[in-house]
Amino acid sequence: MSPLVKAGVMVIGGGEDKVQDRKILKAFVEQSGGSSARIAIIPSASREPEIIGAIYQQIFTELRAGMVEIIDIRERDSPTSVLAHEQIDKFTGIFMTGGDQLRLCGLIGETPFAITMRELAQRGRIVLAGTSAGAAAMGHHMISGGGSGDPPHREIVQMNIGLGILPEIIVDQHFHNRNRMARLMTAIAAYPEKIGVGIDEDTVAIFEGDRTIKVLGRGTVTVIDPGEISYSNQAWVTGATPLDLHNLRVHILSEGSCYHLIKRIPISPVL
Amino acid sequence: MSPLVKAGVMVIGGGEDKVQDRKILKAFVEQSGGSSARIAIIPSASREPEIIGAIYQQIFTELRAGMVEIIDIRERDSPTSVLAHEQIDKFTGIFMTGGDQLRLCGLIGETPFAITMRELAQRGRIVLAGTSAGAAAMGHHMISGGGSGDPPHREIVQMNIGLGILPEIIVDQHFHNRNRMARLMTAIAAYPEKIGVGIDEDTVAIFEGDRTIKVLGRGTVTVIDPGEISYSNQAWVTGATPLDLHNLRVHILSEGSCYHLIKRIPISPVL
Repeated sequence: MSPLVKAGVMVIGGGEDKVQDRKILKAFVEQSGGSSARIAIIPSASREPEIIGAIYQQIFTELRAGMVEIIDIRERDSPTSVLAHEQIDKFTGIFMTGGDQLRLCGLIGETPFAITMRELAQRGRIVLAGTSAGAAAMGHHMISGGGSGDPPHREIVQMNIGLGILPEIIVDQHFHNRNRMARLMTAIAAYPEKIGVGIDEDTVAIFEGDRTIKVLGRGTVTVIDPGEISYSNQAWVTGATPLDLHNLRVHILSEGSCYHLIKRIPISPVL
Repeated sequence: MSPLVKAGVMVIGGGEDKVQDRKILKAFVEQSGGSSARIAIIPSASREPEIIGAIYQQIFTELRAGMVEIIDIRERDSPTSVLAHEQIDKFTGIFMTGGDQLRLCGLIGETPFAITMRELAQRGRIVLAGTSAGAAAMGHHMISGGGSGDPPHREIVQMNIGLGILPEIIVDQHFHNRNRMARLMTAIAAYPEKIGVGIDEDTVAIFEGDRTIKVLGRGTVTVIDPGEISYSNQAWVTGATPLDLHNLRVHILSEGSCYHLIKRIPISPVL
């Protein structure tokens, strides 16, 4: 089986090691084909796309990817965007950097390039990775801002529309590092047909073709499954009123553990 | 039915309103008998017991409790401690202030006074309330310190021995306010025969005689039920290695919701 089919989407919680083992970035290059990998970097989330693009270009080159290009889209209908769409077939891996997920979606969301990128990723034809803002944008329902230090309540999270690569989940990143449990629970309370996936820094949730999430890295992936919620006051409260959420199922997964998105069960590393 | 039997133990998450509605402190006075209440304040958790004792004495007096005394125990075998034990029967309500839960347990833990107080509270003969440190000390397994901003891992929580009033639970307080989900999950991973109860500021979990927890106040009570854990690496990892915890059941309860400790089910306010 080709690695391109095996690993569709790599959702990285931000702050991935860029200096030492580079475990996650190395896994991305390897999944993309190693020395045969043809990688595109999308730095559009960042307000300093040249700088961040160059950083990743250097890293992927040092990790011996076959080819590394930066696609620096700064306007929706720019020649760069059109060219990216025309040439997307030549890439085996696409990497979306951190920055601001609203900026990223504003610049590429639902452009021909993004639509084709989504199709290729969902069919396992490319490896699509995103870190931080690039991870947040993976869902259709996207967390674009929020707070911590309060119980779950409507004002603790701001939602927006993402790239829809993984429409069945809501992603949060820098997860435990920035104490985002309450805001992801709040997002899931609003959209209980989704599954919440919170990813820590230097950690990746790898969505494989068989709908399995595999965990790699230094932190954890937290899965919030609202499938058994027996009571929620989400529809009745406003503003700062705390939520009432009965029967959330929560999994903390560290490296080696997996989660099956369809069966909604965690798979332990010793099995 | 006497209110003394109905409300045994009130576990307050700290920062309860002392100035405006005083909802929680008022509920404590009322449960203790209102104008017939005979209240003892235990300020031993605090390093300024005189000041904090006087604050609560004034509040409970303003709330028209029948009698309010401060029991300022500063040494385990002091005359004050002996006298408190001899006279404990005259009180209908005991209130343990905030401060340092290790100091509180060091000064009163397993003294004749504390043993009798526990017996009376467990038999529903007195209303026992504790806020912040006074709440933390309610379990037998007591969280005495810890951090946030990291995934669950052993070093994120320090445990100690509490007063054992509610031996089936592990309490955490200032819960969402100080982002303590990961540390309570870690505590529960170490003692999965317990139930984790995280209480927000200005919020109380009222443990009634029928083993029901009732929620009152501005925040939430979070219940972490590890009864269905299917996999945990807690026994195998050390230090900063993140935990792997599959199938935690989590309830966020706000005012009006209850939780049945024996049946392990939340009860929604609309039923």
